[in-house]
Amino acid sequence: MKNVAVLLAGCGVFDGSEIHEAVLTLLGLSRAGASYQCFAPDIDQLHVVNHLTGEVAQTEKRNVLVEAARIARGNIKPTTALKIADFDALIIPGGFGAAKNLCNFALVGADCEVSAEVRDFISEFALAKKPVGFICIAPVMIPKLYGKGAIGTIGTDKGTGEAFCAMGGEHKDAQVDEIIVDEANKVVSTPAYMLAGSIAEAHSGIEKLVNKVLALA
Amino acid sequence: MKNVAVLLAGCGVFDGSEIHEAVLTLLGLSRAGASYQCFAPDIDQLHVVNHLTGEVAQTEKRNVLVEAARIARGNIKPTTALKIADFDALIIPGGFGAAKNLCNFALVGADCEVSAEVRDFISEFALAKKPVGFICIAPVMIPKLYGKGAIGTIGTDKGTGEAFCAMGGEHKDAQVDEIIVDEANKVVSTPAYMLAGSIAEAHSGIEKLVNKVLALA
Repeated sequence: MKNVAVLLAGCGVFDGSEIHEAVLTLLGLSRAGASYQCFAPDIDQLHVVNHLTGEVAQTEKRNVLVEAARIARGNIKPTTALKIADFDALIIPGGFGAAKNLCNFALVGADCEVSAEVRDFISEFALAKKPVGFICIAPVMIPKLYGKGAIGTIGTDKGTGEAFCAMGGEHKDAQVDEIIVDEANKVVSTPAYMLAGSIAEAHSGIEKLVNKVLALA
Repeated sequence: MKNVAVLLAGCGVFDGSEIHEAVLTLLGLSRAGASYQCFAPDIDQLHVVNHLTGEVAQTEKRNVLVEAARIARGNIKPTTALKIADFDALIIPGGFGAAKNLCNFALVGADCEVSAEVRDFISEFALAKKPVGFICIAPVMIPKLYGKGAIGTIGTDKGTGEAFCAMGGEHKDAQVDEIIVDEANKVVSTPAYMLAGSIAEAHSGIEKLVNKVLALA
């Protein structure tokens, strides 16, 4: 049985992991007969956003690991607890948390940096030549992690695609039910809610991504 | 296109809606070609539980509607905004929130009461003979809402099944991939994480429940 790490960034599209994308990732893995372990960095969220109003809660603080535990039903570990030998692959769902808590793309665009412990975590998979799947906005980290010419998609958004290229990546447009595969780096990406008009649409691409990541593992 | 209300109870298995069950409900509806609208009561949660440690956060307060908005990606309404003519059916995912925020079964067992605005909301569907699906622990509300002899399942847990009967309901044991249908009341129930050992198992019963609720609508 293949064992896959899932890197979460909180719990909620506007300040954490996009919940549908995260759950559809776990569903895809489970239905394919793989086991999984969720991880998240033990850091404060950049923001807490009231998802009813869309406003930032000015005084409230929440921890990425503690909130991500909601999606994981309590079964989650800090990124620093990774034992790379135990895992065959990694998948990273999207949501603004991927661009606020895992890196700072939401703040500075192409000048973004992947946060130190997240870079350490993902790099273990890259160095071990284990496949990594990036969903939705999470692929903006691909050029920073894999270097010049790394291939990925964030869908069809012109500005985000240009930022991907400005960071040294090679961006390929993709529709919501498509995946883009960088065979050399063993990197797979799909747009999900960068384009999805429904959860069924998001599911179509995520299911393909999960199955491709497992095939490369 | 059938339009289905989904009643949420927060965001997280220990103090709100079970996230996997809620997302799998939305996925089932979307894949079946139905549209949906999420609702939640605009009330404080009974508890805020740290899902990493399992401990109750003694000083923190969160609002059921605001947290449920995370699962709904912001597209959610308070239960008081229901226009029953717009909807063909209702589905209620589980999680402790269903037994802490929608009713008080988690505190008092068979003496439980459904909270007033939740009772008003669900009763509109019952009175209009529109089907309602109850998932996981949510079926404990069935006897209180539909009266003596109403049929449902919470899986195979003896104590919870006896409480269901003590409230006047007729409990039928069911496995995780099964649904129980009360044809007279148009009520469907499935155990989901009362029994599921994996998200794929939870999915099997929830997909059947969604499709049966749509068939009855």
